[in-house]
Formats: sequence, structure tokens, C-alpha cells
Amino acid sequence: MNTFGQRFSFTTFGESHGKAVGVVIDGVPAGIEIDESFIQSEMDRRKPGKNSFATARKEADKVEILSGVFEGKTTGTSLAMIVFNKNQKSKDYSNVKDLFRPAHADFTYFNKYGIRDYRGGGRSSARETLARVSAGAIAKLMLKNLDIEIFSGVSHIFGIGENNFDFDFAKKSAIYSLSPKFEQVQKDAILKAKDNHNSVGGSVVVKVKNAPIGLGEPVYYKLDSVLADAMMGINGVKAVEIGIGKDSTFLMGSENNDQMNIDGFETNNSGGILGGISNGNDIIIKVHFKPTPSIFTKQSTQNTSGEVKKMSLKGRHDPVIAVRGSIVAEAMASLVIADMVLLNMGRKITDIQKYYQK
Amino acid sequence: MNTFGQRFSFTTFGESHGKAVGVVIDGVPAGIEIDESFIQSEMDRRKPGKNSFATARKEADKVEILSGVFEGKTTGTSLAMIVFNKNQKSKDYSNVKDLFRPAHADFTYFNKYGIRDYRGGGRSSARETLARVSAGAIAKLMLKNLDIEIFSGVSHIFGIGENNFDFDFAKKSAIYSLSPKFEQVQKDAILKAKDNHNSVGGSVVVKVKNAPIGLGEPVYYKLDSVLADAMMGINGVKAVEIGIGKDSTFLMGSENNDQMNIDGFETNNSGGILGGISNGNDIIIKVHFKPTPSIFTKQSTQNTSGEVKKMSLKGRHDPVIAVRGSIVAEAMASLVIADMVLLNMGRKITDIQKYYQK
Amino acid sequence: MNTFGQRFSFTTFGESHGKAVGVVIDGVPAGIEIDESFIQSEMDRRKPGKNSFATARKEADKVEILSGVFEGKTTGTSLAMIVFNKNQKSKDYSNVKDLFRPAHADFTYFNKYGIRDYRGGGRSSARETLARVSAGAIAKLMLKNLDIEIFSGVSHIFGIGENNFDFDFAKKSAIYSLSPKFEQVQKDAILKAKDNHNSVGGSVVVKVKNAPIGLGEPVYYKLDSVLADAMMGINGVKAVEIGIGKDSTFLMGSENNDQMNIDGFETNNSGGILGGISNGNDIIIKVHFKPTPSIFTKQSTQNTSGEVKKMSLKGRHDPVIAVRGSIVAEAMASLVIADMVLLNMGRKITDIQKYYQK
Amino acid sequence: MNTFGQRFSFTTFGESHGKAVGVVIDGVPAGIEIDESFIQSEMDRRKPGKNSFATARKEADKVEILSGVFEGKTTGTSLAMIVFNKNQKSKDYSNVKDLFRPAHADFTYFNKYGIRDYRGGGRSSARETLARVSAGAIAKLMLKNLDIEIFSGVSHIFGIGENNFDFDFAKKSAIYSLSPKFEQVQKDAILKAKDNHNSVGGSVVVKVKNAPIGLGEPVYYKLDSVLADAMMGINGVKAVEIGIGKDSTFLMGSENNDQMNIDGFETNNSGGILGGISNGNDIIIKVHFKPTPSIFTKQSTQNTSGEVKKMSLKGRHDPVIAVRGSIVAEAMASLVIADMVLLNMGRKITDIQKYYQK
Repeated sequence: MNTFGQRFSFTTFGESHGKAVGVVIDGVPAGIEIDESFIQSEMDRRKPGKNSFATARKEADKVEILSGVFEGKTTGTSLAMIVFNKNQKSKDYSNVKDLFRPAHADFTYFNKYGIRDYRGGGRSSARETLARVSAGAIAKLMLKNLDIEIFSGVSHIFGIGENNFDFDFAKKSAIYSLSPKFEQVQKDAILKAKDNHNSVGGSVVVKVKNAPIGLGEPVYYKLDSVLADAMMGINGVKAVEIGIGKDSTFLMGSENNDQMNIDGFETNNSGGILGGISNGNDIIIKVHFKPTPSIFTKQSTQNTSGEVKKMSLKGRHDPVIAVRGSIVAEAMASLVIADMVLLNMGRKITDIQKYYQK
Repeated sequence: MNTFGQRFSFTTFGESHGKAVGVVIDGVPAGIEIDESFIQSEMDRRKPGKNSFATARKEADKVEILSGVFEGKTTGTSLAMIVFNKNQKSKDYSNVKDLFRPAHADFTYFNKYGIRDYRGGGRSSARETLARVSAGAIAKLMLKNLDIEIFSGVSHIFGIGENNFDFDFAKKSAIYSLSPKFEQVQKDAILKAKDNHNSVGGSVVVKVKNAPIGLGEPVYYKLDSVLADAMMGINGVKAVEIGIGKDSTFLMGSENNDQMNIDGFETNNSGGILGGISNGNDIIIKVHFKPTPSIFTKQSTQNTSGEVKKMSLKGRHDPVIAVRGSIVAEAMASLVIADMVLLNMGRKITDIQKYYQK
Repeated sequence: MNTFGQRFSFTTFGESHGKAVGVVIDGVPAGIEIDESFIQSEMDRRKPGKNSFATARKEADKVEILSGVFEGKTTGTSLAMIVFNKNQKSKDYSNVKDLFRPAHADFTYFNKYGIRDYRGGGRSSARETLARVSAGAIAKLMLKNLDIEIFSGVSHIFGIGENNFDFDFAKKSAIYSLSPKFEQVQKDAILKAKDNHNSVGGSVVVKVKNAPIGLGEPVYYKLDSVLADAMMGINGVKAVEIGIGKDSTFLMGSENNDQMNIDGFETNNSGGILGGISNGNDIIIKVHFKPTPSIFTKQSTQNTSGEVKKMSLKGRHDPVIAVRGSIVAEAMASLVIADMVLLNMGRKITDIQKYYQK
Repeated sequence: MNTFGQRFSFTTFGESHGKAVGVVIDGVPAGIEIDESFIQSEMDRRKPGKNSFATARKEADKVEILSGVFEGKTTGTSLAMIVFNKNQKSKDYSNVKDLFRPAHADFTYFNKYGIRDYRGGGRSSARETLARVSAGAIAKLMLKNLDIEIFSGVSHIFGIGENNFDFDFAKKSAIYSLSPKFEQVQKDAILKAKDNHNSVGGSVVVKVKNAPIGLGEPVYYKLDSVLADAMMGINGVKAVEIGIGKDSTFLMGSENNDQMNIDGFETNNSGGILGGISNGNDIIIKVHFKPTPSIFTKQSTQNTSGEVKKMSLKGRHDPVIAVRGSIVAEAMASLVIADMVLLNMGRKITDIQKYYQK
């Protein structure tokens, strides 16, 4: 249950204050050139402590490849990567040890497992997403060979934003904003929440470019359903949309249907997926994050004995999940596409004959 | 890829105009009493042709159990059910045989498989959901033993509706509406679309009551991510939300966090899931359906040779997917919960000791 | 747990005296020509009642395709097949209902599930292998496109036989014997056991010809380990060997190693598998079946209340499992190879690029 | 494909001369006490270099837990362990770099992946079994809570041995011999082979004691078929038997059937498994290893260009695989049993009700 994917699959391990966080990727094809600096640059995009819009907590997040690469290329065997936690010597948790932080997984983990790693959430910490981003980088290096590219950015903060997405702008924006027009207001909203010891929600868009027609395995491993699974499993995500998503409920069929002309589809309301299979258009996924649950105002909670307690969180936390979350969503999309690329091979007997004739 | 679930899993087969549609459920615990009339009543809730809000097409949809039940109880072996198609003698498809119906899976199936069952969509037809509903009925019969109940209904049609959900009302409503206040306007919207040879979108809410704390397997088989997978895989679904979903992006952390008092959580913004694990509250899932793609106005499409053609669909189709879709969403939720109930057993060594001491 | 395989996978259902036995195959590539008479001929090879070396019980075992085939070709969707049981009206079981037949699964099923289908073993009956043989026929039709062929035969009965295998002779032999020299003595051994109301054990060899180099996925889905799984799971199998198998323990490395010359391997002690991957040689699997547990001499057993009882089985049973078992072993090997053929695609990034360049 | 198991599953990574070999175990129940010295002692049982019957190569094989354990107990999250390779600086491989070592995986890996880690076999090296043994130790610590114990030993070397198994003696024997009577002759056979720059085959027996009735999931995850999978996947294994195995082919049904008296089964020919489910008797598995392929006499092989070459291996190698292989087989059996213990929970609805009533 710590594994995602069928053919290009990965398994993660590690807790926020344990020795290390890592990932083992299975099904990586042999012969992919591995650029370690690219992997690290992906990690750095996710890294906290870079500016005032994220937590001030500094983490080196230096990733190391342990297996599966030989002389700069993948060998087809399981590829393991690890990030050692620099500072496992954790601070004094005695005051929060028995308290369930509101809107965190503390309450449910304790009830399910009868035990809880109270140091920063343990396994339920967003620090686990380190593993996803490093795995996503390998997926991207694979997809590069097929000219498939994946982009992401923040479309809305606290409801502020627009439905035009400038993915180039997002690359340079400190908050990965997709909107040159609204970036400043979005930043202001984040800083204001931060100043009030509070947090805000936000929305992310992921785009897959140049995906071939045919990705997705109906009827229970459809491209859209697996993307929904991948996105909803990211900490803090509460909604996922494909294409125009929820907005399609406000439309009539004649407005929503993407009709075709000689160049293909005239519109892309479907978000590039029909019947769970990619149709050659850009694949568009929208991901909605709740506000960071860790806030510094006093809240009411229970302790492990079921008593009601007031709790004031301390520490350094992101005032918004969506910003760094966009990098995780982008990684997850890359991993899903890599998996689908492998699964789609051999759907026709003629393809299989051609493959084995070599 | 025609299988869903890990422990309580099911595999479906069959095309809209083939001999039969069916399902094999694996992992059904032994000893569950099987009430065949209940299974049929679930099928009837999904059945078309009952009133003017759905397609006029009549389907008997009589389900038959083939295996896994002996003397009225499940035996622990694979449980197969089948619905034979009464009228496989299909009408003349020669005029649509080579045309891709807009917003349908025709284009993608043809490109992926190099072949297409052009009779009513074949495998991509919503008729496959028969199998899901029959499997969902078995899941419900299992969950009844744990007092877990699952409800569904239509919250919005074409954007019309409210966020108060009356699940008792939905049971009696001809369109499974959750809103006594808006039901009539919702009906009007459907009939108007129908009169205009068009269709409308709609939204569905599913509620799971009495789910125990602890369901969900982090970090890649979380309750919310699997529910998202299950829902997004239903034909026509374009968005899935958990709890208040997308609305949480408009909130501050202090507004969104569910604080606790002595009775548990004071609010349920989370939709009953924290860190991917059920917290004992009602589980709330929102599912958004696009308008039915089959409309009778003239549309532009391609044929299998890539030529642009005008197409006018004929036949009988639902003017809205969400109504009958709600029953499918309810079935999928039941199947996910049944799976999670089994997966959660043995999460603690003390539970395992107790189990084997008997 | 009623599913076998990863990419070309199948799920079976049905009990010996239920309504039907069937199979759903997932992952069948599109475009395979389906010759229904071939499928039936495979079923007939497994069918009982053909001569005095098998049970006199007559079973029609007429197989019917329910889905996944359109206009004579596979569509890439799940392919279901079914065999309806002609005579479910079962005989009077009152005298054996509470007794555990020695060396059968009755005792373990009852203890595991708390319930048992006492009519002829229910799910644990060898009748389930009907489903395997029909699925194996589809696998063979797929593998035919790659010129891969699978053969089987009986090498030993009650220890009588030789290590030269004449697969052409086996096709015509009434007991599928691989030995023209020993066939008659093997037949005599079977008939003598039958006359004494007893049964005998036997051994089977399966050969895969023309398998490409590269099948098998190390290190936990190796070709040999999956074949072992497939074979050991057949009713009555107690040992599985690859190549010279157990005999390799009597050898020195210099004797056992298959050295190479310009044409490839000089010998085939390995049975065509090195490091869990096919090496281009014939793949050789040896499968050992215990004697049929159903014998007519008086035996001592327990009933469901734990009391010791004497039991005399009645009915018609095979005096040897290995004969009809060889057809099942051949089917299982076909299914494993089909699965491995699909899994092996895309092991190199260059193959993937070539595939998607089309 | 680097993962084994369904509920208690593990994924391994690492090559013989890479940075590390490791394992991630998924599905470990929470609350198991972890004795790190026990894990290390299991590693030491497998470790080479201890005496003249194994390779003289010294390896520290110090195992380190990276995640999944908190304050001495498992947390229910993924448990990772790692062994860093002390001496990755590998020797000069230039003379064997392009040669396929006979009876090794070199030929098949190169053909499958188009690339090969030529340093000591890379991923195909028996060094990967480090990961299995460490995971097996965790399985044993779990099973200890249920009083289930697993033993192993060497029954035959080069055909020398007996069918009485003294597992206590094996613990103290330098070659893990099960036979006080034959141990010395077995040792002599090993040393003689070693002196002749050759190697010998051998056989191993694994016994599971106190396994509850009911383990095994018919019909495609049977206890015996999964054990066969687990054992055949170990490097060098060519045959697997359950109970009396192949010997049952020489018997009549009346001799082979285990009849019952008031205490249970009178004999254990079945090896504790009926219909793929444990019957409460000792589970007996026999595992046959070919002679070590690495020998020092001159052999004929091909190079990567397909030219025939003479090859003389150098280095230090075990003269027999079966001795250290027995520890790996024991570990794999422990892992299978742990998986089956979890899978068996919830097979009856009454058990599920009891579980959730708490």
C-alpha cells in the first residue's frame, strides 16, 4: 500500500524525522540516460525555505541514487533513491506528543495503528513527497525520449486567479503562478494569511503535452481515474478535475462536446481524455488544495485519552500547500504517464509481432 | 485492467450489444446471506426506461448468480453474476459504423485497439455499469453486517440545486434529487434539454454512514484517492470532491480545520477522511457528470479515414447522466468501502493475535 | 485470489456442481483471430469419459464466448468464456455431506470458510480446470502469431517411463504418453490400479518451443518461478522441476553448466531458463502429480464434528490425475508465456521509442 | 517485478557491486517488537566467509533500519532496511566484461536489457538475497507473536543424505546439515569439489511449525503454489517439492492419502497442505539447488559479439549453493507465511463482525 503504479511503479518509505526518505522504482526501461543534476533540480523546485511564501524551514534534500543505474544509464533493474534527513535529532515534542493536531492525520493514524510517530507527522508528513518528486524526475527523463513534457503551476490562491494558464510564467514565478495578471494579488493573499498566523487554500493545473493517442486502460485503469487517484492522494488535496471538470455540469451537451475538424478536436473541454484514453490533445488536470492545517491560532482538539484540549502549534509551516504542492502534482502526473506509456504497448497483436520480429 | 479493488475486488466483462454483461467478485467473505431480490432491486434503480427523465429504451436487466453462493450464503469463492442481453440482434449501424460520435470513446478506442465494436459503444458503453451495480449490491449485503450504509442522490442539475442533502427524499424522487426545494426546477431543466434534442450536466453526492475509524491504507491506497479513482472511472465523470472539496480553496486554515470537542469533530469539512483514513464521520463524496454526449443536433466529426463528416445521432438516450449515474457512484463507493474493511484488518499485531487465538 | 497473471491475466469462477464454470481473460491484445473450433478441441483433449484410462463420467464441456470478440477477432477488451454445467441436479450427498474425503480439500475448506460446498468438492474440484484450458486456448491463439508452440505429455506413470520425450507420439496416445516404448506398461499400471479400486501417480513434461530470448522479469516474476507457481497450483501437483531439475543436485558444476558454441548452448540442462529469463532454448518443465485421492477402498477420516469415521467413496473417478492433468499443465504454461511476452515489451527505451514513432 | 507478496509484501533493490542492497517491506502490522540483534543474527547465518565450506570472500553485511520502526516497535508504515556495500571499488573486470559466464544470467540479461552490469552479476547476483534474509527476519518477528516457527537445513549434498531431518542438528552444523549421520560425508563431498575447482549440487528442507489451519487462498494464491514461486525464484533452484513431492508419483492412492484419526492426520505425505490450504500439520518444502555455476575449470562460452571464447573464472566462490541457500529458503518461507497470515483474516463474515465490534 506504499506502492503506486502497475508497470512503471514506485514504492516509498521514510518518515519526516526518521533516518531517510526514499523510493524504489520498478519497471524503469533499460538505457535511459540519467542526469543527476536534473533530478536534484526537480528536488530543489519542491524544496522549502527559498522565499517568504513557503516555510522558512531549511532542508537540503540532497538526493542519492543507490541502484539501477550503471555507467550513466538505467539497467532495467529496480532504481532506488534516498534523501537522508540531516537533522533527525528532533526537538522536544513532549507538549504535543499526546495531542491530535486539527485537520492532520494524527487522530486517524493513532486509531488505526494504535501507535503514532508524533514527530512532525511521521509517515503522514508531506516530507514523503520528496520521494515522489525524485521518482517523477526519472519518469520525466524517460518521457523526454518520447518528447512528452509535463508542466504545472498555481492557477488560484484563495479563489484569486484566472482560467488562462501561462506555464512559462509559472516557471519563473516565486509562487509558480500561472497568471502574470494575478500573481501579485495571490502573493499578497499568502503573506496576509501568514501575518495572521493563518493559511489559505489554492488550486493547481497540470498539463501534459505531446502525449500520444491511446494512453489509458479501460475500464478500471483509465487515464483519468488513475490521475484522479494520483492527485487525490497528495496531502491536502480535496478535489480533482479533468479538463473543464465541474464546469461541464453547467453546460448542455451541444456546448460541452468537442467536435472535430480536419485538424482534430476543435475544443478541449474533455481535457484530452475520452473514454479514459488520451485523444492526442493536451491533458489538463486541476487539483485543489485545502489551506495548510498547521496554523498558529489556538484550536480545540482531543488528546490520545479522548480529553478536549486547547492547542497552539509552533514551528515553521507553509502558509499555503498549493505552491510546493504543484511540483508534487506535476511529479505524480509524470509517473502516471510513464506507467501508461508502458501499459499501452502491445495492445494490438500486430504491434507484438513487429516487436518480436526484430 | 478490467479489475477494481485489492481484497474485495471485481472483474467485469461484456459489451453493450454482446451476449452478456457480467462480473466476477473475488474476496467475498464466506457466510454472507444473499438476498437475490435485493440485488435485483438495486439493478432496477439503475434501469432505464422508467420515466421521462431517462432514456425510453427498455432493458430487463435481470441478474443471475452463477457461482459463489451455496444454500443462500456466500462460500468464500469467486462470485459471478451475469445479465444476458435480451436483444443482441442489433439494428443497422451501417451509417455510423465509420463515424466517431463526438465526446464518445469511439475515436480513442479505434486508435488504441485498431478495431472498434461500433454497436452502441461496445465495451465503452454505460451498459458495463450493470456489472458495477450488481457487484455493489453484494458489497452492501456484506457491509450490512457491520451496519455500514451508503446513500446517494443528485444535488445539482445544470447548476441548479443546494448544499443541503435530503437522502430520504432522493429515494423517492424520480430524478433521485436531494432537494425537495429544487426538484421541480431540476426536472424542468432536464425536460427542456430533452425537448431541444440536447442534454445537461449534473452533480451527485454519495454518503457513507457508520464507517468505522481506520479505513484507508496510506500512502498510496488512501480512502480518498481510491474513491477518486472509483468515481472518475465512471462514464461521464469529470470531477470528484471529498467533503467541501474545491470550496476549501476559498477558506483560511482557521475556517477549514475541523476542530474537536468531547463528542468528536465539530464540523465535517474534511468529508470524514484525514490523511487518507476515515475519521468516524460521514464520508462525503461529490461527483460531477458532464452532459450526455449523445445529442440529436447535427455535429461535426471525423470518420475512421480521417475525413470530416456531419453526424446526426439517432436512437434513445438519457438527457442527463447524473441521475442514473448516482446509482453507479453509490455502487462504486460500496465496493471501495468493502475493500477497505478487509484491508484494514490486521493493521495491529494485537488484532492478529486475537484473531488467531480463537 | 482467483486471478492469475499480470498483463495477460485471467480470473475463474464456478463450482463442480454449480450453474457454470467460466473465465474472464484480461489483457488480450486486439486483432487476434479466434477459431472457436480450436478452443473446443482443446477442451475435448481435457474431457473425461473418452476411454478406460479416465473416469467414465461424461461431460459435454461445450465452451461459449460471451465477450471480447467481435467479427471473429479480439477487441482488446475482457474476454469471457463459460461452460454451463449440464447436470447440476446433483445426486444424493447426504451420506458424505459431513465427511472429509481423505487427501481432498474438504477438511481445509471447511475449516477456513466455515462452510463447504459438499457436492463434488465445489470450487476445489478439478472441474475448475475447464476454465484454465479454455483460457490457455486463447493464449495459444495469441502465441501462434509469434510461432511459439507448447506441447505436453506423460513421461511416467507410477514411476514407469523414460527421459526421452516424443511429443508427437503423445498427441496420438490415449494416455498422452511420451514414450512409445513404455506406453503399454503405463496403460497396464493404470488399469491394474483401477481394477483394484485404487489409483496411481504420474509425471508430466511440458515443452515450449520457439520462445524468444528475454521472457521473464527478475527478480520476483522470473519465468521459472512463475511457471512453478502455475504448475504447483494445479490440483494434485506435488513437485515441479525446470530442465533436469532435481537431477542437477547429483552433478558437479562442470557437468551441469550448459557451455556455448557458435550455435548457442551445447546442452539444455537449464531447461531454457537462466537467471529467470528464457535463453532461446526449449523451455522444459516437469510436473509431478500424486495419485488420485478418490479411491474406493475403505479409509479412515473425520466428520465435521471431529469424530472418526470409516468412509467408502462411490462414483466415477480418474485412476490417474497426470493424464488429463497434462492438458491443464500445457494450458498453464501457455498462459504464463503469453503473460511474459507482454511484460517483456518495453524493457529498453529504444524499443519504446520505436513503438511510439509509428 | 521486484516485489513479492500481496499483503506482507517486499520490494528489493541493489546490485552486487553497487552502493547498497536493500528492501522495503509493505504491510507490516503495527506494534511488533523489533530486535535488531536478531535481524543481524539472521544475516550472519547467510554471511559468507565463515568457514571452508563457503566462499572465502568476507562481507560485513551490517543491516540498518531506515524507516517503519519507532521507539522499538513497528508503526504500520513501510519498513526499509539497507546493507551498504563496503567495497564497491570493484576489481578490474576488463577481461570478463564482454564474456557470458556459463550457466549465469549474463547472456539473458544482456539480451533482454541491451546492457549488463558485468561486475559480479549486478542485480542477478546472489547478493540480492541479503534483502530477502533481512525481510525474512521481520516476518519471523511477526510470526513469533503467533508461535509460528520456521526451520531449514541441508538434506543432501551431491545426492548424499537421508530423509530424516534433524533441524536442531542443522542449527549447529557448519553446513546446516540435517543429518548427523551423513554430515561428514557431505562435508567431504564439498571439499573435494572445491579442491578440484569444481562445485556440487544440494537439497534443502524447510519446515513451518505451528502454522494455523486455513493459510492459503485458492485457487490462484494457494499456499503450495506461492511457496513454489518463492523457492524457484531463488538463484540456483531447479526443483521444488511439497511433502513427499515427486515420491508420491511412485505410490498408489491408498498409500499416499493421509487418513485421519481422532488426533488428526495419521501421516503427513501432503506436507501440511490440502487443496492449497494448510491443514495444521508441519508444512514441509523441499528445494533443490544446482551446483554453483562459477567454477575454475576452463569452459566454452560466447562474448557479447557472439564469438566463441574459452573462459577461466577467477575469484572466490561457494563450492555449493545449497548451504547458504537454505537460509534464503527459510527466509522466503517466513515471508510467504506472514503474507498468508494476513490474507486469511476476514475469510468469514463472522470474523469481520467480531473484529469491528471492538
